[in-house]
Amino acid sequence: MRIAIDMDEVLADPTSKFIKLYNRDYGVPLDTILDPGNEIYHHVPEHANNKWYDYINEKGFFRDLPVIEGSIEALKKLQEKHEIYIVSAAVEFRNSLEDKMDWLAEHFPFISWKNIVFCGDKIIRADVLIDDRSKNFEGFEGRKLLFSSPHNMLITDYERVDNWQQVLDKLL
Amino acid sequence: MRIAIDMDEVLADPTSKFIKLYNRDYGVPLDTILDPGNEIYHHVPEHANNKWYDYINEKGFFRDLPVIEGSIEALKKLQEKHEIYIVSAAVEFRNSLEDKMDWLAEHFPFISWKNIVFCGDKIIRADVLIDDRSKNFEGFEGRKLLFSSPHNMLITDYERVDNWQQVLDKLL
Repeated sequence: MRIAIDMDEVLADPTSKFIKLYNRDYGVPLDTILDPGNEIYHHVPEHANNKWYDYINEKGFFRDLPVIEGSIEALKKLQEKHEIYIVSAAVEFRNSLEDKMDWLAEHFPFISWKNIVFCGDKIIRADVLIDDRSKNFEGFEGRKLLFSSPHNMLITDYERVDNWQQVLDKLL
Repeated sequence: MRIAIDMDEVLADPTSKFIKLYNRDYGVPLDTILDPGNEIYHHVPEHANNKWYDYINEKGFFRDLPVIEGSIEALKKLQEKHEIYIVSAAVEFRNSLEDKMDWLAEHFPFISWKNIVFCGDKIIRADVLIDDRSKNFEGFEGRKLLFSSPHNMLITDYERVDNWQQVLDKLL
């Protein structure tokens, strides 16, 4: 079985990095918890709404993101039985590409370059797609697993997984 | 119809760049014509056989490649009727990613970031794949068009196109 796995908010945690940067620049509290259905930019002063776009385009933004809990061990286990591909919509952000390669090499060295896809639209063929953005499920023909993230908590149309243990329970 | 198009030796011409660099470093004549079935490294002094790997990993190698004749106009025409995606096995070479983005932005600005895929294995869903490497056809379920390049001239298993006019004749 071929399993495609998104990066941001599934393997990597950009939200906590955003909060750190907003805190540095605007004094937003570090313990911000996002309301269900909200994006990070809904939780910052209005004049800073678009600042996340500046942050995300900065070289280095994606290089030191925290790893989502349990993801490394889960991918190792999944890889024993399945074909694993990392599929990230990285080409939206030109400056993220090298950072994402280096981040994967650091935290997921057991994933070959052959199994990495940086794209815009996710026009992939796979049996399962694990993603936090439901827009990436459009046109995807396999099983869709919506990985819980604050911004998608109001969406009810998809099979949901809240963490990597739940993914393992479903796919192993 | 969704058409996926490879970059190297289909849109961009790395071979002439290799020849230029080999000429600079080893005095290989600039007018080298590759024998059918041969790769560029079959045409250089033995001690320089693996040098192409150094060249290709250098930052900037992919930034100033010549554009394959007729490709820009052909993609504009194809885009009027079809969904066009650029699909390059770029993640093998980490240092090529930004160069390839910038090269596409310069020569193919009418291709959106949403329509770019940098990958290892080409696990894409499309109706047509135009590629010079037959290995990329493995597992691909759509129509396969082998774009002629010296190294693939001995391969007879696939529908072949010698230039972009022939692609237009087949797909428009």
